[in-house]
Amino acid sequence: MGLIVQKYGGTSVAGAERIKSVASRIARARRLQNRIVAVVSAMGDTTDDLIDLAHQITPDPDDREMDLLLSTGEVMSCALVSMALHAIGEPAIALTGAQAGIRTSRAHRRAHILSIDPERVTRELNRDRIVIVAGFQGSTEEFDTTTLGRGASDLTAVALAAALSADLCELYKDVDGVMTADPRLATGARLLDEIDYEEMLELAQQGAKVLAPRAVEMAAVYQVPIVVRSSFNDSAGTLIHEGVKMELRNKVRGVAHDTDVAKVTVQGVSDRPGISAALFEPLASLGISVDVIVQNASSHGVTDLSFTVSRGDLGRTVRAIEPVAREIGAQSVLASEGWAKVSIVGTGMQHAPGYAARMFRALANRGINIEMITTSEIRITCIVEAKRIGDAVATLHDAFQSDEASP
Amino acid sequence: MGLIVQKYGGTSVAGAERIKSVASRIARARRLQNRIVAVVSAMGDTTDDLIDLAHQITPDPDDREMDLLLSTGEVMSCALVSMALHAIGEPAIALTGAQAGIRTSRAHRRAHILSIDPERVTRELNRDRIVIVAGFQGSTEEFDTTTLGRGASDLTAVALAAALSADLCELYKDVDGVMTADPRLATGARLLDEIDYEEMLELAQQGAKVLAPRAVEMAAVYQVPIVVRSSFNDSAGTLIHEGVKMELRNKVRGVAHDTDVAKVTVQGVSDRPGISAALFEPLASLGISVDVIVQNASSHGVTDLSFTVSRGDLGRTVRAIEPVAREIGAQSVLASEGWAKVSIVGTGMQHAPGYAARMFRALANRGINIEMITTSEIRITCIVEAKRIGDAVATLHDAFQSDEASP
Repeated sequence: MGLIVQKYGGTSVAGAERIKSVASRIARARRLQNRIVAVVSAMGDTTDDLIDLAHQITPDPDDREMDLLLSTGEVMSCALVSMALHAIGEPAIALTGAQAGIRTSRAHRRAHILSIDPERVTRELNRDRIVIVAGFQGSTEEFDTTTLGRGASDLTAVALAAALSADLCELYKDVDGVMTADPRLATGARLLDEIDYEEMLELAQQGAKVLAPRAVEMAAVYQVPIVVRSSFNDSAGTLIHEGVKMELRNKVRGVAHDTDVAKVTVQGVSDRPGISAALFEPLASLGISVDVIVQNASSHGVTDLSFTVSRGDLGRTVRAIEPVAREIGAQSVLASEGWAKVSIVGTGMQHAPGYAARMFRALANRGINIEMITTSEIRITCIVEAKRIGDAVATLHDAFQSDEASP
Repeated sequence: MGLIVQKYGGTSVAGAERIKSVASRIARARRLQNRIVAVVSAMGDTTDDLIDLAHQITPDPDDREMDLLLSTGEVMSCALVSMALHAIGEPAIALTGAQAGIRTSRAHRRAHILSIDPERVTRELNRDRIVIVAGFQGSTEEFDTTTLGRGASDLTAVALAAALSADLCELYKDVDGVMTADPRLATGARLLDEIDYEEMLELAQQGAKVLAPRAVEMAAVYQVPIVVRSSFNDSAGTLIHEGVKMELRNKVRGVAHDTDVAKVTVQGVSDRPGISAALFEPLASLGISVDVIVQNASSHGVTDLSFTVSRGDLGRTVRAIEPVAREIGAQSVLASEGWAKVSIVGTGMQHAPGYAARMFRALANRGINIEMITTSEIRITCIVEAKRIGDAVATLHDAFQSDEASP
């Protein structure tokens, strides 16, 4: 008898009919002799609607009250899914994040899970009940409601799976699983049968929207096997785990892209210690995430430093950087939007420098200019013009297609 | 420096503009050097919408899950009111019923408040914050969310006022206060400046919708002074307290009516001990509230027994009564709808039997037949045809008008 933690996203529970269909799917899993915990997101656009409502009251709602407001979306859907199970004769109980023992930091809107006390969940499982948990939320030690940041219902599911030592964590989405690239851009994109944690993490960080990087990180740390699959059909989905077969590791596993990229260049920076710190400290204190950072080799003690941020952060970034740039005697600060990043990811690249050359050649042959380059051990990322991103993804997917042949 | 518990009903918080207006009103009360706790209901039709949503899933939703679902309505509005206060520079914090320390029985959908631990509320007040509490809800010892029954946000406010030894409990409604009769039926209906607990309780029990009887009962027990007033204007409203002036007590204070009345008559019942118990025990075990009960004097050891229930309970009542009636040898069970009750209430009637005669005469002069009569020490109630209820209320309000002259 296995223990499975399932998670159903917002699209999967959008409306009464879909909720009933989720209940059937849960019931089916239970009839296969499994104990089931199901984490649910808010229905459809509920979270956006609640944010709109708050913004009708004030442009700058308090984070703590915002969490209390937003948390109601998932509470509603977990109550409704539990009702739908009762209606088909399945014993079920709905729990809020707090009731499920999810204790978090006090950083409202982006709280971290500190611990999970699974006592109540375990007790209900032992009473032979299906446990439905509101995703995306927890509570502080003081019983204040927190939320874990956008898309964090996946994280709730993985964390519960870890705390309960579940056999499997199934994440139900509105897509069939993890693809080798975005199928809207690369017509040949294929569903991956499996992928290991590290590769999945790179794909997620480089823009694959299917899974939040935080959820993958936690799954890797606690070795929770994850299946990403569709709640609208019975396809097997993608298994994310540690044990991908050795012969598969020497491959490009996927192409990821992200069009939410703005670029800032600080020109004519003196190349002396402490300059980078002076530039990036103010951004860190504003909570602005800097993504790619490239500093050209210094000539005559003067260099250019470029980095990327989310488009939404560009204005604040420039305002924070300009006074520092003046202070350190930089020539100018240039800001621009309209960029995108495209990455190839695969454990196999680790000891195969040829991949970078093949990537750059493929883009060049298509007439796509590379603005910046950055690499990790298992990933190569290029910043290109956003209007060429479709071509870039398709080209790279074609170029490395052969590497991705099914096992 | 006083402590005031306010309560804002669903109409008062229906929409962003009204929520901002509630925030201004709270801020104004605070600037008068008061510490404020404000209890809020769900916005407008939210509760009905949530019930509809549940019924799209299943005709018979589980009570526990229904409570979890319904509780989100008040959580949303308390978060929004707190945000609106932040937006105008007032320190505020929103608390769920559970966070506000409201512990209840486990009777979901109709839980009773067992105790209030005001520790968190007091702590926030001491930090100079306005405390906004989600009405209508609490939690069990096991931290399961409960609701207190329809309209119970008034009860939350009165209970908090009692637990905090507040100086005043202000209930903001979409009406100006407690009226001498329904102004839609009696054109001369006046706003009462004040009324005592006992009279208010009778009015509420006999159909005055302005306040739930439970809230009045609790206010009476803990001697919490209540003001019922409008959130849409600055009229002073009605003060409900113990200390109504002596010279006012010898009056009819108001006319109440209720059209949700169905009648059941069990004919030809043997007049022997245990018969009434046999009839009413099954209704009690079904949770059906029986209102007026009249048993005519027995002739030849056989009597008729009539009682009233809510129209919605009539079907279940008849199904429960019929087998018992057969068992005890009654002749027949008659059920009918289309009834209403009209009551006059006033402490003064206690030792003045003339009031009953005046009431019956007034109705007779208007050609209104009295079907059943029942009295308490400070109330006389007649059951009449529902289609005559407008005439009955207007007639009685006119007849006792002189008794109600302002102090």
